Amino acid sequence: MKSFLLSLFFFIQFGIGYCQIELKINKVRLNNSIQKLSTYGKNEAGGSDRVAYSEYDREARKYIKDLMIKAGLEVSTDFAGNIIGKKAGLNPALKPIAFGSHIDEVPNGGDYDGPVGSLSAIEVVQTLSENNWPTRHPLEVIIFTNEEGGVIGSRALAGQLSNEALKIKSSSGLTQYEGIKAVGGNPDRISELKRNSGDIAAFLELHIEQGGNLDREGIDIGVVEGIVAIEWYEFTFKGLANHAGTTPMDMRKDPMLPASRLVLAVNEIVNSFDGAQVATVGKIEAFPGAGNVIPGEVKLNVEIRDLSSDKIHQVYQAIEKKAEILAQESGTTVSINHIEVASKPALANPEIQKVIESSAKELGLSSKYLPSGAGHDSQEIAKFAPIGMIFIPSKNGISHSPQEYSSPEDISNGANVLLHTILALDQKLSSNN
Amino acid sequence: MKSFLLSLFFFIQFGIGYCQIELKINKVRLNNSIQKLSTYGKNEAGGSDRVAYSEYDREARKYIKDLMIKAGLEVSTDFAGNIIGKKAGLNPALKPIAFGSHIDEVPNGGDYDGPVGSLSAIEVVQTLSENNWPTRHPLEVIIFTNEEGGVIGSRALAGQLSNEALKIKSSSGLTQYEGIKAVGGNPDRISELKRNSGDIAAFLELHIEQGGNLDREGIDIGVVEGIVAIEWYEFTFKGLANHAGTTPMDMRKDPMLPASRLVLAVNEIVNSFDGAQVATVGKIEAFPGAGNVIPGEVKLNVEIRDLSSDKIHQVYQAIEKKAEILAQESGTTVSINHIEVASKPALANPEIQKVIESSAKELGLSSKYLPSGAGHDSQEIAKFAPIGMIFIPSKNGISHSPQEYSSPEDISNGANVLLHTILALDQKLSSNN
Repeated sequence: MKSFLLSLFFFIQFGIGYCQIELKINKVRLNNSIQKLSTYGKNEAGGSDRVAYSEYDREARKYIKDLMIKAGLEVSTDFAGNIIGKKAGLNPALKPIAFGSHIDEVPNGGDYDGPVGSLSAIEVVQTLSENNWPTRHPLEVIIFTNEEGGVIGSRALAGQLSNEALKIKSSSGLTQYEGIKAVGGNPDRISELKRNSGDIAAFLELHIEQGGNLDREGIDIGVVEGIVAIEWYEFTFKGLANHAGTTPMDMRKDPMLPASRLVLAVNEIVNSFDGAQVATVGKIEAFPGAGNVIPGEVKLNVEIRDLSSDKIHQVYQAIEKKAEILAQESGTTVSINHIEVASKPALANPEIQKVIESSAKELGLSSKYLPSGAGHDSQEIAKFAPIGMIFIPSKNGISHSPQEYSSPEDISNGANVLLHTILALDQKLSSNN
Repeated sequence: MKSFLLSLFFFIQFGIGYCQIELKINKVRLNNSIQKLSTYGKNEAGGSDRVAYSEYDREARKYIKDLMIKAGLEVSTDFAGNIIGKKAGLNPALKPIAFGSHIDEVPNGGDYDGPVGSLSAIEVVQTLSENNWPTRHPLEVIIFTNEEGGVIGSRALAGQLSNEALKIKSSSGLTQYEGIKAVGGNPDRISELKRNSGDIAAFLELHIEQGGNLDREGIDIGVVEGIVAIEWYEFTFKGLANHAGTTPMDMRKDPMLPASRLVLAVNEIVNSFDGAQVATVGKIEAFPGAGNVIPGEVKLNVEIRDLSSDKIHQVYQAIEKKAEILAQESGTTVSINHIEVASKPALANPEIQKVIESSAKELGLSSKYLPSGAGHDSQEIAKFAPIGMIFIPSKNGISHSPQEYSSPEDISNGANVLLHTILALDQKLSSNN
C-alpha cells in the first residue's frame, strides 16, 4: 500500500510537472465576471460606489457566492463576514493553500482594485474543477470584508480586530459592528476567528499594482517583496506672528520660510538614498492663516514608506537634522511629533516570491521584484502565514478612481500566474512536509 | 481798522513764532488719561476688550466726552457715532484744522493703538485752552467710530460707507448699523455726513508705529509718508493627486514643490528691490490635504504692500514670472487670482510732512520718514483733505496685543509734535489763504 501511494505520488508529480503549464484560466469568462461585478454600485461618473456593507456590496456578495459554488467551492460566511470557499485536497492532513482579495471599493472607486484578485481566485478554482485537476493541499478562497475601510476581515483572522475598532463608522454609514452583522457575520464572536501560525500553508493575493512601475516599464508581472511600513511625522515650525504690513522684511521670524525649505529638503533627502522609498508632504497649514498676518506657526506632515523600517529611520533622521538646521538659520524653533499610524512592514515569503517569478517565466511573462506601497489584506495574513503577492499593471498607476484600468490580457496573465503559483506551491510545500 | 487788524496779525504771528516752542502739553496729565482710559474693558490677561459698540466702549466714550468738554470743546456725536469736538478760531471764515484718532480696540488688544492719538488730541486743545492760546483756524477733534472693525467713522466722512457695510456684524456682536445706533449715531442719515474737498484745511493723526523701525533705531518721531496700498494674489499650483505609497518619486507631479519654491522666491524677490515694500505668504493649503495623498493642488496667498502701486506691480510681475517658471519646471500648472481687497495708497501731504519734521526738529527730537504699513482713519480722510500722520515708537513693534507699549516720554513727544504741527499749519495755511 505504501509503495502504491509512493508510485501515485511520483506519477502525479511528474504528470503535473509535465503538462500543468498547458493549463490556463478562461480569459473571457474571467473578464466577463469582472465586468458583471462592476455593475453592482456603478455611479453616473463611471465610478464604483460599492463600499463595504452597502446594499451594492451585499448584492455583489450574493453574485460572488454563486460563482464560488459553481466553481465547486463549499461556501460559508465567517463571523467577520469574510466569504470563505473551501475545496478539499488529496491529502486532508495538509494545511490549506489560501488565496483571495476583496470586492469592496472606496467611494467613487474603480472596478479592478480587489475584484481582479477576487474573481481570479474563483476562476482558478473553476479552471481546476472543470479540468478535474487535483491538488494535494485543500484550497481556500477568501473574499475579505471591508478591505478599503481598514482591512477589517483580514485583521479579524490575524486576531487584531479590537472591540474599539468595531465601533468605528464605515463609509456605508454603518459601524463596522453593524456592517459585519448586515453581511451575515457575528461580530460578537470575532475573537474565535483568530488563526495561528501553521493554520495556512501559504496565502496568495493577486492585485493591480496601483503604482505605475509595471505599466511604465511594460512589464507583465510584479513579484511583490512585501508591503511597506508607513511612518508619519508632524513638523511644527514656530516663529513670531506679526502684522504683515508694519513688520519690515528683516525683522520677521517667519516660519513659512524654514517650512518651505523643509518641503524641498524632504524631496531631496528621500531621493538621495538608493531604493524605492518614498516621502510625501501631503498637508501643510499656517497659523493663524490670514493673508495679512505673518504666521506664528506652520505645521506640515511628512509620511515616509519603505519595506525596511531601518531605511525609514535613516531618511527620517536626515530630515530631522535638516529641520533643526533650517529652524536655527531662520530664528525659529521646530518640534516633531511622531504620529501613531505606524504600520510595520509585511515581508513576502522569499520562497513564494521565487515561485511567482518562475511561474511567470514559464508562462513566457516578464516580471520584476517590487514593493507594495499600498496596504493590502495580505499584510494582516503575513502575521500568521507565509504570503506572496502578484501584481499586474495598472494603467498610469491610477487607482481608487473611476479611471482605474487593467487590460483583459494583463488580468488573464495575472490569474494564470496565480494558478501556476498555487500548483507549484502545492507540490513544493507537500514535498517539504 | 484794516491796518489795525494787519498789525494784530503780524503781532500774533511774530509772538507765536517767538515763543510757541515753549508751549508744551502736560505729560503727566496725558499719560494719566491714557491709563484711565485703559481701565475701560481691561481683561484678566492684561489686554483690552474695548471693542467698538461694546459696553466698555460706550462707557469710555462718556469719559472721553467729559475730557473734551473740560478742554473747552463743544462736543457732539455725528450720525456715524464719531465724537466731534469743536473750538472756534480767530477767523471763522477759515476751514478747521482737524485731528484725532480712535479709542476702540481689537479683541484682547492693547492700550496705545488709538488712545495715544485720541487723548493727545484732547490734551493739545486742553493745553491751548489753559494757556489762552488762540488759533486762526477753528479746531476740530474727531474720535472716530470703530476704526478696528473697518474704519467705519472715517469712511462715513469720506462718503464710502455703504448700506451693505452697515449690515456686517462687528466684534461686539452688533451689526455696524445697530452699533452706530447704540453709541448715539443715526445710521439712516449717514450719507448726509459726506465731507467734500476743501471742507477741512488739514487732518492730523498721531499714532503708535505698530512696526518696530523707530524703536529699533531709537528715533523719536516718524514722519509718515503715507499709508501703503495692499494687494492680494492667490496662486494655485495644480499637479496630479496620487497615492503617496505607490507613486515613485520620479513619477510625481507634486504641486507642493513649486509652491514651496514660490514661498522662498516671494521673500527673495521682495528683498531684491530697494525700499520698504513687504510681501507675505500668510496662508497655504494643500488639497485634498491628507498625509497619505500626494496633493493635486496647493493654494497660497501672497500679499504685497507699498506706498507705490507701481512698485507693488513690479514686485508682483517678478513673482508671477517666477511662478510660471516653477510650474513649468515641475510639470504643474499655475493660475493666479487677484483678490479684491485692494486698498489704494493714501499719501500724506508733502507740505504737512515737512511741517511735522521741522516741528520735531524744533522740539529737539530725532525723526525719520517712513510709510505706514497698517491702515488708519487718515487713509479715508485723505480722500477729501490733506493729511499728515505722526508716529511714535511702539516697543518691539508689537501691536494689537496686550504687550503693546509706548513710553510716557515717547507719547509726550508725539503730543508736542502734534501741538506744534497744528500751530505751524495754523500760520502756514492762513498765510496761504
